[in-house]
Parts: sequence; C-alpha cells; structure tokens
Amino acid sequence: MTKETYNVAVVGATGAVGQNIVKLLEERNFPINELKLLSSKRSQGTKIMFKEQEYTVEETTNESFNDIDIALFSAGGSVSKQFAPEAVKRGAVVVDNTSAYRMDEEVPLVVPEVNEEDLALHKGIIANPNCSTIQMVAALKPLKEAFGLKKVIVSTYQAVSGAGNQAVDELRRQTEGFLNNEEVTPKILPVNGDRNHYPIAFNALPQIDVFQDNGYTFEEMKMINETRKILHAPELKVTATCVRLPFFTSHAESVYIEVEKEGLRTEDLWKVLDNADGIVLQDDPTNQVYPTPQSAAGEKEVFVGRVRKDLDDDKGFHLWIVSDNLLKGAAWNTVQIAERMIEKGFLLK
Amino acid sequence: MTKETYNVAVVGATGAVGQNIVKLLEERNFPINELKLLSSKRSQGTKIMFKEQEYTVEETTNESFNDIDIALFSAGGSVSKQFAPEAVKRGAVVVDNTSAYRMDEEVPLVVPEVNEEDLALHKGIIANPNCSTIQMVAALKPLKEAFGLKKVIVSTYQAVSGAGNQAVDELRRQTEGFLNNEEVTPKILPVNGDRNHYPIAFNALPQIDVFQDNGYTFEEMKMINETRKILHAPELKVTATCVRLPFFTSHAESVYIEVEKEGLRTEDLWKVLDNADGIVLQDDPTNQVYPTPQSAAGEKEVFVGRVRKDLDDDKGFHLWIVSDNLLKGAAWNTVQIAERMIEKGFLLK
Repeated sequence: MTKETYNVAVVGATGAVGQNIVKLLEERNFPINELKLLSSKRSQGTKIMFKEQEYTVEETTNESFNDIDIALFSAGGSVSKQFAPEAVKRGAVVVDNTSAYRMDEEVPLVVPEVNEEDLALHKGIIANPNCSTIQMVAALKPLKEAFGLKKVIVSTYQAVSGAGNQAVDELRRQTEGFLNNEEVTPKILPVNGDRNHYPIAFNALPQIDVFQDNGYTFEEMKMINETRKILHAPELKVTATCVRLPFFTSHAESVYIEVEKEGLRTEDLWKVLDNADGIVLQDDPTNQVYPTPQSAAGEKEVFVGRVRKDLDDDKGFHLWIVSDNLLKGAAWNTVQIAERMIEKGFLLK
Repeated sequence: MTKETYNVAVVGATGAVGQNIVKLLEERNFPINELKLLSSKRSQGTKIMFKEQEYTVEETTNESFNDIDIALFSAGGSVSKQFAPEAVKRGAVVVDNTSAYRMDEEVPLVVPEVNEEDLALHKGIIANPNCSTIQMVAALKPLKEAFGLKKVIVSTYQAVSGAGNQAVDELRRQTEGFLNNEEVTPKILPVNGDRNHYPIAFNALPQIDVFQDNGYTFEEMKMINETRKILHAPELKVTATCVRLPFFTSHAESVYIEVEKEGLRTEDLWKVLDNADGIVLQDDPTNQVYPTPQSAAGEKEVFVGRVRKDLDDDKGFHLWIVSDNLLKGAAWNTVQIAERMIEKGFLLK
C-alpha cells in the first residue's frame, strides 16, 4: 500500500538543479505532505516559493531527514556521501543526482524510460545518471532493442548550466565584458576548483570535469561507464569527447552508432525513435527541421534529429540528440524516479 | 625562370577571407608588382590600406585580369565560375577559395603540407579546400603516412566567420539583444539565403550549408569528398556532422580515427604529430593544456590536443583539431599556395 502524501526533502534546493526540482514538484502536483528545502550553511535562510507559499531553506543536518519519505539530493557528491546514508537510516528513499553512488553495484542507476525495472533492486538509494548520459541512453535504448548495438562514439556540445549557477553567471558576465572590450578573468570554467580557468564566452572548452590518468575527463568516463550500466551492456563499446560551449541550457550530442543488424535504412531508425517513450523525433532536412539547444530548453523530452546512415558503412548511423540538461538531464529524471517509486510502492515505509 | 615580382589580384577583397588575404600578402612581404583589389559592384569604392598605401576596390570585370599573374578568388562560387576562366584565359594562375572547382578532376585541390606535389598538375586553376577540411587533413596526413588510415568520423564545432561578415555581425547583434532581453530576428544563419533562419547566439545549429538529398549537408559532403581527394584515398571511409556555434573565429573538430596499424599507443601519435609540418601539438591533460578556438585565433598553424586511444578498440584514437578558419582554413592556405607556385616556377607566364 502506498501512502497518499509524502514528506519530501530537496537537498541543494538553491542550486541550478534544485530550483528545477522544486518547480517540477509543483508543476506535477507531487503528492507532498511536508516539504523541506535544504542547503549548505551558506545558503540557509534563502526564501523559495512553492504553491504560493514561502519556504525558508534550512541547513542540512542528519536530523533534517527525520520523518522524510523521499529525499532528492542535488548538492554535490560529498554532501550525498555524508547525508544520503543518514537519510536512508531514518527511513527515507534517496534519489541522488550526483556521481557519488552511480557506479556502486548496490545502487540502481535509472532512466525510467530505459531501465525502470532496476528500481526494484534498490536498498534505499537510487542514482540519477549524469545529464549527458541520460539523453543519450534514452535514444539508444529503443535502437538497441530493435537492431542491436555494437559501438557508440559521442562528441558532446554541453551547456554551462551543467557546471552550476556560478558558471551561468560567468558566461553572462564574460560575454558582456567581451562585447564591451573589457577583460574578465575566468574563475569557474572549465571546472570549478581545477587549477586553470579559460574563457568560455565565444569559445569552446574540450574539458568537462577533471582529467583522469588515462587522458579522458571524468565526464567522458561517466558517459562510458554509466551507459553500459544503464543499458545492462558491459561489453558495449562506448567512447566520448565532451566539450563545454557558450550556451546556457540543453546539451546536444553528435552520436555515431554501429548497429548489429544489416541492411537498415534511415527510415527504420526514424520509425523506432518516433514510437519511443520520452523521445521526440525532429528530423526533416528538406524543411530544415532539427532540434537545437534553444528549441529543447524548458522541455522534458529528448529530441532527436539529423538521423543519417553512414554513406560507406552499412551498420553506421548518425544521431543528433538534444535535451534540457537541467530537466530530463537532472531535475525531471529525478522527479520521474520519485513518481515511479511511489506508483510501484517501492518506498521504505 | 620566375619573375621577381608579380601582378596580383584579390577577388572578394572586402570579405572576411579577402581582408585576411590582403593582410597576409603584406605580412609575408609577398613579391607584388601591382596589386588589384576587386569586389562586386556593391562594394566597389571601398578603401583598403596595404603597406601604408590606400587602395580603392574596383568592380570585377573580365578586363580586371589583363596582365595579372596571380588571382586569389574568395567571393563565392558563382563569381569564381564567371571570372576564373577569364583570368586564366588572360594568363593568370587562379587560386580559388570557393567550392566551384574543388571536385573538378582537372583542378588540383591543395593543402601545401599535405599534397604540394599536386600543384604540378594545374591547368591554370588551383582550388583551396573547405576550411574544415584543411585543418583535418593537415593532421591526418602524417598519421596516415605513419600508421595507415581506415576510417574518419568527425563532429565539427565551427565559428560563424565561416559564413562571412554578415554572420559575424549577426552573432554580435543577437548576443547583445539576448543579454538586453530584446528580440532579434535571425536573418543570416544557419545559411544565408536558405528558407529558415534560427538564432545562433547561445545556441548550436547542426546545419552548415544547404541539405543534400541524402540528408547530409553540403559542408558535410565537402569534408567527405575533399578529404579523399586531397589524401589521394578514394576508398578512405569518412563521415561528418557539421555544427555552427556561437564563436567568431576558429573551427574545432572532434575527430575519431581508425588506423591500420595494431598496438599503437597515444605516445606514438604524439610523436608523429609533434614532427609534422604546420602542426602544433598542445596536449598535456595533467596541466589542462589543449587548444581552443580562442587560443588558435590569429595563428597560422593547426593545433592538436586531446589525443587519446579508444579504451575498447586497439585501432581507434581521438583527436581535437583546432585552427583559425580564416587563416589556415582560407586566406593563409591560399597565400601559401601562391607562394609555392612562385617557388616552383609554376605560373603561366
């Protein structure tokens, strides 16, 4: 039996993703009994409107999670590491939108349209995948099911909001400065806290998250490892190049795939994508129809265009996959998971 | 025998590339006897400085090419189609920076570092390749020679200046408008003259040049066909996705290659690239060293970074290739060809 309403905590409520989670809980009329908005000490006291009522953001402590049924975490990996186990201990189910638990074998990593069935295996924590991974697997899953999938090569075009509100501010300030011939010293991007910072305004930075010893960035490794885990395809070949670009919202991805099946035409992929859950096909070259970061911004779906067969390779196809990184890539997938958990009666109490 | 100085015409002297050609002729101290700056009727009368002397731009006519030794064309394909044969008829060698003659079997398509030897085959016209192709083949050629090359999959990140000065103005105006919450109707991009126009400010447009019947854009087909011609590799598998982005100068490319040779390490590619003509290797992940559009702007070389072996595929490697699209991608390659033609004594008279 499911309760009719739930006590919900949002951890990181003042952040780029947290703000969108609160908006979506309102928009979806999520069955909330009590709503608790939590943050770091620095942001406590911030006022946030929810259903025409003002909420005051509180500092996150272990006790914040007493009586909470569902806790939605989006405040960075270290916050999740510290508080998610405490929340679970107190009876809450945690949906965690950080990389802290994604590759933990005990933790399901879920995109509802792709592997909802994994929710049943949860032990208190469900991980929300990386934004750039979510939109890609949403489009790849139906194609994999229909035609088999051997290899994925992705180059990303990622919005600054994926690096948080400070990166959004930096793009705006830097752009204004550039247009006014003023020098603005980069302080946040490519990675807040990394040693060097480079201009993002009117530029492209081929680094998202920190570099690993193998020469790939952590973002690239997330796309590789998370894709395999979500698709239950440990042998799938996946490789990635991730690039930060000067736009605010939505990630775009140029994805090249090799399918198993021979003799497919572009139309065969269109048909599968057009019928897939959560996917909107926007692909009509004759009329210049394709998704862009701006056209996808504010939307919950994953948009696919520029589907084309490789002219030299019978099993090769291109896709251009675009989605709002703060919505399907983060807040919406998180809220979607919470909704499914309730529907399935999978909460802890 | 080569003459000591030459009569040089620049067709399209007021355009984004033409202006850079004039600058480079000055910077290189090109052996000029008489310089003629030509344009359409609309731009005639424009004043341009060259070596502290003011030149008046004239309208292009057949007679403009009387006594010209070298004509550098960069005024659009239809202008080249109309006037290049006239210039050749009058004894000039034409270096054409449009797509008009690139795939003509009689016309060499040349990147000096890559296939300088093809200049010998010229019959009056030499074609300058597409900007996005030039920088890619410059990096691929030494790798192909050293290790063999089976397949190339490229996703581009291209600057608006590749679409001309009007596109540069549009990005600037639209960006200002966006920051001031004013609406600015897109009129130029993605393709000047195509039916629909979309915002480029804070956006990404997966269309460069017009769509072909096969679903690829003309820019993508240029990269495919020109790469094969320049590398003398008609069987090489090449496929491309071309994307316009909101920055002014330099194209970047995420290039995935499959080599022939087994067992290579990233270091093997570094070594070859580091010794290659016209290539600057900027690749040190530990110190966040990689090229960006802004770091490459104003430079003549092709910059390569983010070289990495595919973690699943022994023959797969990633490259991030960046170059100033108006210099090596256009004006500099054009002037370089003219210089080599003189050195080799390949002019018509």
